[in-house]
Amino acid sequence: MHQTKVRVAEDALDANTTIAHANRADFDRESVSVVNLMSAPGAGKTSLLEAVFRAGLGDVRPGVLEGDVQGSLDADRLSHLHVPVTQLNTDGGFGGECHLDANMVRTAIPALSLADIDLLVIENVGNLVCPAEFRVGEDVKAMVCSITEGEDKPLKYPLMFRTCDLVVVNKIDLLPHLDYDIDALLRNIESVNPGVRTMLTSARTGEGVDAFREWLVNVAEREGVPA
Amino acid sequence: MHQTKVRVAEDALDANTTIAHANRADFDRESVSVVNLMSAPGAGKTSLLEAVFRAGLGDVRPGVLEGDVQGSLDADRLSHLHVPVTQLNTDGGFGGECHLDANMVRTAIPALSLADIDLLVIENVGNLVCPAEFRVGEDVKAMVCSITEGEDKPLKYPLMFRTCDLVVVNKIDLLPHLDYDIDALLRNIESVNPGVRTMLTSARTGEGVDAFREWLVNVAEREGVPA
Repeated sequence: MHQTKVRVAEDALDANTTIAHANRADFDRESVSVVNLMSAPGAGKTSLLEAVFRAGLGDVRPGVLEGDVQGSLDADRLSHLHVPVTQLNTDGGFGGECHLDANMVRTAIPALSLADIDLLVIENVGNLVCPAEFRVGEDVKAMVCSITEGEDKPLKYPLMFRTCDLVVVNKIDLLPHLDYDIDALLRNIESVNPGVRTMLTSARTGEGVDAFREWLVNVAEREGVPA
Repeated sequence: MHQTKVRVAEDALDANTTIAHANRADFDRESVSVVNLMSAPGAGKTSLLEAVFRAGLGDVRPGVLEGDVQGSLDADRLSHLHVPVTQLNTDGGFGGECHLDANMVRTAIPALSLADIDLLVIENVGNLVCPAEFRVGEDVKAMVCSITEGEDKPLKYPLMFRTCDLVVVNKIDLLPHLDYDIDALLRNIESVNPGVRTMLTSARTGEGVDAFREWLVNVAEREGVPA
């Protein structure tokens, strides 16, 4: 009898990565660029998106997938700006998880109307640990770091800072009112993720929001996006 | 043959609860009261403890179990105040978990010198989701909520606020510099945990720190501690 050589599957993927690839293929098919936006609770992800959407993204049609343990407070805020928003709650069948994973995002894809958007922002659950561990099919990861959280956060949550393509340092309008060394923060970011792009913003005053807006447009136009 | 009736074990416990009970028994044997202190990253747990330890706890001998994903930045800060501090890193054999559980705390007990302390403060990993789900053998749970995180956090992370015996609202020195409705925060806390004790503090100016200090002394003296 002719014996067939057994082939060993290489690059065996965990289930999350497999599903993330499937998500990515769906996004690519519809030419949708995807940002996985992460932060600690209350760092200002939603406020920054509000500021960006108010200014507009030019020809780029944005959409948002809003991840929360429960409720839809942020989705309600964004939907007032006439941006299509889909709510994804981790306590609805996902055990109240502290992060989004590829399978949760996959369940939301049918609700997303991918044909009508160019840029999908996935606003992850507020948490500096687990969201960094799960790819969801994104092109790029970005995080918002509020200066009220202290300069030490890159050293305490290095995986989050290391995994991101952009670190937005927010609430800089509060700088005069804090004992805060922003150079120390930037040094700490650089030490865990050398060369990563950073920008300083205040969603409240609008300072720096244009730079974040332009970065998002570039992601949508797939300029300067890591392969 | 004489047939024995099969006994069904009732109140079957999950492994975490079983180990939390074992921890609690060890703490009780040494008359150590235990606070599980939780918050989002950068809300000010360590700064509040610094302020409390500087003022002193009278006859109460404190100790700290410092939970972090990695590093010992907070433990280093507290050890300068001559308080015994033990570091517990979740990435050291615990997969970089985003919370402490009873088994992690159990591994740290031999290092704690329970005979030398009356009050153990377990400073959990900065996270508003999972730390609320795991009992570690504590007498009481407390959380720190910074006003820079927004008024909506009790509604977005209700389990954390609901599970605590005390909510410390910190960074109130920043109130004049924020668009913040502290009454809305207190209403939101009340809506998810009716009657829970709250206090307003600023670790930076010292405002309200005495109330937190007194609360900790009461826990150590087992006054007003839930059974």
